Amino acid sequence: MAKQAQTAITPTRQEDYPEWYQQVIRAADLAETSPVRGCMVIKPWGYALWENIQRTLDKMFKDTGHENAYFPLFIPMSFLEKEAEHVEGFAKECAVVTHHRLEPGPEGGLVPAPSAKLEEPLIVRPTSETIIGAMYAKWVQSYRDLPILINQWANVVRWELRTRLFLRTAEFLWQEGHTAHATAVEAQEETRRMLEVYADFAENWMAMPVIKGEKTADERFPGAVTTLSIEAMMQDRKALQAGTSHFLGQNFSKAQEIKFQSQEGREEYAWTTSWGVSTRLVGALIMSHSDDDGLVLPPRLAPKHAVILPIYRSDEERTRVLEYCNTLKRDSEAQSFAGESVRAFIDDRDLRGGEKSWQHIKRGVPVRIEVGPRDLDADKVVRYRRDRGPKDKEFVDRGQFIGEISSVLDEMQGSLYERALALREENTRRIDSLDEFRAFFPKDEDKTISGGFALCHFTEGDAAMQQILGELKVTPRCIPLDAEPEEGTCIFTGKPSTRRAVFAKAY
Amino acid sequence: MAKQAQTAITPTRQEDYPEWYQQVIRAADLAETSPVRGCMVIKPWGYALWENIQRTLDKMFKDTGHENAYFPLFIPMSFLEKEAEHVEGFAKECAVVTHHRLEPGPEGGLVPAPSAKLEEPLIVRPTSETIIGAMYAKWVQSYRDLPILINQWANVVRWELRTRLFLRTAEFLWQEGHTAHATAVEAQEETRRMLEVYADFAENWMAMPVIKGEKTADERFPGAVTTLSIEAMMQDRKALQAGTSHFLGQNFSKAQEIKFQSQEGREEYAWTTSWGVSTRLVGALIMSHSDDDGLVLPPRLAPKHAVILPIYRSDEERTRVLEYCNTLKRDSEAQSFAGESVRAFIDDRDLRGGEKSWQHIKRGVPVRIEVGPRDLDADKVVRYRRDRGPKDKEFVDRGQFIGEISSVLDEMQGSLYERALALREENTRRIDSLDEFRAFFPKDEDKTISGGFALCHFTEGDAAMQQILGELKVTPRCIPLDAEPEEGTCIFTGKPSTRRAVFAKAY
Repeated sequence: MAKQAQTAITPTRQEDYPEWYQQVIRAADLAETSPVRGCMVIKPWGYALWENIQRTLDKMFKDTGHENAYFPLFIPMSFLEKEAEHVEGFAKECAVVTHHRLEPGPEGGLVPAPSAKLEEPLIVRPTSETIIGAMYAKWVQSYRDLPILINQWANVVRWELRTRLFLRTAEFLWQEGHTAHATAVEAQEETRRMLEVYADFAENWMAMPVIKGEKTADERFPGAVTTLSIEAMMQDRKALQAGTSHFLGQNFSKAQEIKFQSQEGREEYAWTTSWGVSTRLVGALIMSHSDDDGLVLPPRLAPKHAVILPIYRSDEERTRVLEYCNTLKRDSEAQSFAGESVRAFIDDRDLRGGEKSWQHIKRGVPVRIEVGPRDLDADKVVRYRRDRGPKDKEFVDRGQFIGEISSVLDEMQGSLYERALALREENTRRIDSLDEFRAFFPKDEDKTISGGFALCHFTEGDAAMQQILGELKVTPRCIPLDAEPEEGTCIFTGKPSTRRAVFAKAY
Repeated sequence: MAKQAQTAITPTRQEDYPEWYQQVIRAADLAETSPVRGCMVIKPWGYALWENIQRTLDKMFKDTGHENAYFPLFIPMSFLEKEAEHVEGFAKECAVVTHHRLEPGPEGGLVPAPSAKLEEPLIVRPTSETIIGAMYAKWVQSYRDLPILINQWANVVRWELRTRLFLRTAEFLWQEGHTAHATAVEAQEETRRMLEVYADFAENWMAMPVIKGEKTADERFPGAVTTLSIEAMMQDRKALQAGTSHFLGQNFSKAQEIKFQSQEGREEYAWTTSWGVSTRLVGALIMSHSDDDGLVLPPRLAPKHAVILPIYRSDEERTRVLEYCNTLKRDSEAQSFAGESVRAFIDDRDLRGGEKSWQHIKRGVPVRIEVGPRDLDADKVVRYRRDRGPKDKEFVDRGQFIGEISSVLDEMQGSLYERALALREENTRRIDSLDEFRAFFPKDEDKTISGGFALCHFTEGDAAMQQILGELKVTPRCIPLDAEPEEGTCIFTGKPSTRRAVFAKAY
């Protein structure tokens, strides 16, 4: 991450991190804003990344016994009203459907037809606990019908005021798992199991180290008894919540009447969970690994692993070089990486070589190969790696290139993880005084790099603490699950405390 | 299809075809209605079928050069207004979002917050030509930016009054391809190419023969220059439009200003296409193959190919039998069918054997295997095939079962296609008089089996013809693309005609 004289992305991370983020997305052609307020367009390169995320997670969900299903986009307003905290959490930011027809208006153009006003407004789902719960209530009669282990891939809408591509958009894509169980213990195990799946995915596929923890009461999902989350540190030292898994207790089953006859013949309410990750993961991935030359992708999720760039001057050269490139592509694809074929492609567009190379650098293709007539004669290729400098080339034998492709990708995957872990470790501190805490989090704005993760003793739900955190724009991210119990003193109140939480500025 | 004394589905197809359809869905646990008017819940078995459809088509789209992307769920009302025929086609049946917040109402409960009324209402996409076209207008500057070949997997909403699971629902899942080209010829080739992809999928994966044809002017997609479709005959002899591919000319590019500078330096409007299939295909699949005992699935799309049913009385037997079943499962899965592993599973639920078998018959699992202690000792299994009678069993050697599994599935796939083709051929007639036409289509209701496909000479856009068709509830389905030109006389007007269209009652 040495600073270069000139970088492909302006501004750099140091200069203006939020603007750097937008420019990385633009340069990599991942997504853009749409004419519909707060809604993004995910472009092919960004969507291919999402498809890889989706395919990998989908397999993990199925391997842990879940099936997919699909529930309605709309939720009747009355459903939202049934769970008090839930309505409080979502009523303020939802898209409300009130009519089912347009007709010509008095001043030309169209208007919602007054005669087609819905008796009960419909909400575009911000999350589906209520509508799915209503179905589970029908499906569950006896303990034999449990557990229900269902996941849904869907779009959801939350009317956010300030939006940012992938991180916070009015519409986003996600998966939401919804399960119902006969006992609290089973549901709690499920909540934890899915957190582990998310952590496994984040660390081993996204190359993004995460802290697994429990949310404090104020940060819980509206209606949950317990919310678990994985939290990752971005390169500006802020936290990003990358996935959540909720133990809902019997709150939703009581609101939705999900009842069953137990093995002992008693009528009981089911215990439910929900868990989700979204296109936000794409934002997390960008901010974890990208540099001042653009996107850097963990090879396991990269839409393409290697781009082959033919170089030639004449038609005769073109024919020979392209033929050679085709064999390189074929032989690369015969290699396997992370359980799938290596994804190689040839870029033979009629563009200047430099411009073409920079496009692939900015798009984060892990490996670039250049092949010219002389390389071909020597049976060599020029290899560049996205985790090294853009001019840092290696001449390698064709056989070596093919033989090493999978291990090079593996090495890059590992080094991205190590680099992200080192950044987090450098910027995580156990802090035991309020002064130090204040000094750790500079009280200012978005454009600078913020402090990092502070591990502090705290007092759940304390008002004085809330006020200080509010001033500093810092939040408790989670209470790490794997922390050892430890006697201490809350830095905000001086009260005794037995555990530390992670505090950070957050996305 | 011999009539049995008693069938698993009541009523039978002959007795009440529409009700039979609903009962097949219920018995197979594919989907059900939801508390949201017109929206369905797709249950795991139905969704797994859709996933197989999706995976197969997605590969076909990518193999023909398309990429996936994602565009907003909402369409500003003004976008819909830009293309005159398009707004006419969709304004009458759309979900209109008018507010972005709920608040407590004067009489308790929630109401859309008056202060959160949108300046411009948003439509939940009924199809995405307009919003995607607005993006293409930004992306296309030069002929070098063309063609754009993009597909989207999404949910769409059309506010239908009469709904039927899978066939016609307010919300449905689909894919919509949207392409832009530099020339009319290229766009027309794309339109045809994607129709061929749909036909290939319908015939070779769904085992459903289709007629490829062009829609008459009245039946075109709103805003299209040409609409091509594939039409299949259901077992009640009605037609089902299973996929459409539209050549949109420059209608949408003019409405959306999709302009580019040509190779010769002229400013030109792009030529666009769109094409789609939806969860309606699941309905088509059900009605093509299922029988009076429930769902019958073409093996290539079946979520599971084979269910293994252990039979035992004691714990000791259970251990032995289950162990044997596990090896059967493993060895089955080591076989490949249609390019994927055979999908086998063991059903060891604590249910009566008969009940369990019937569940799998009703769910359409292609092959059932029973294994009891005596079978095991003889190294044999009892094999049942879903395309034969429910009691029609074969004792086969274990080795034979494993060795034949792929060819048995292939044979079933082929025989389903042949049976559907024979039905269509038996019920397709060239009809050259209006009397014969009227007799072919009994003038009545839903519950009986309708006539079939009538191939007739006709006059495009003739009012007298429209009236007769309206009375009989018959529509022109398409003008077959592969028909030989043929001189003849329109049966409705007596005018000379050079081609026949397929007429049928339709879904």
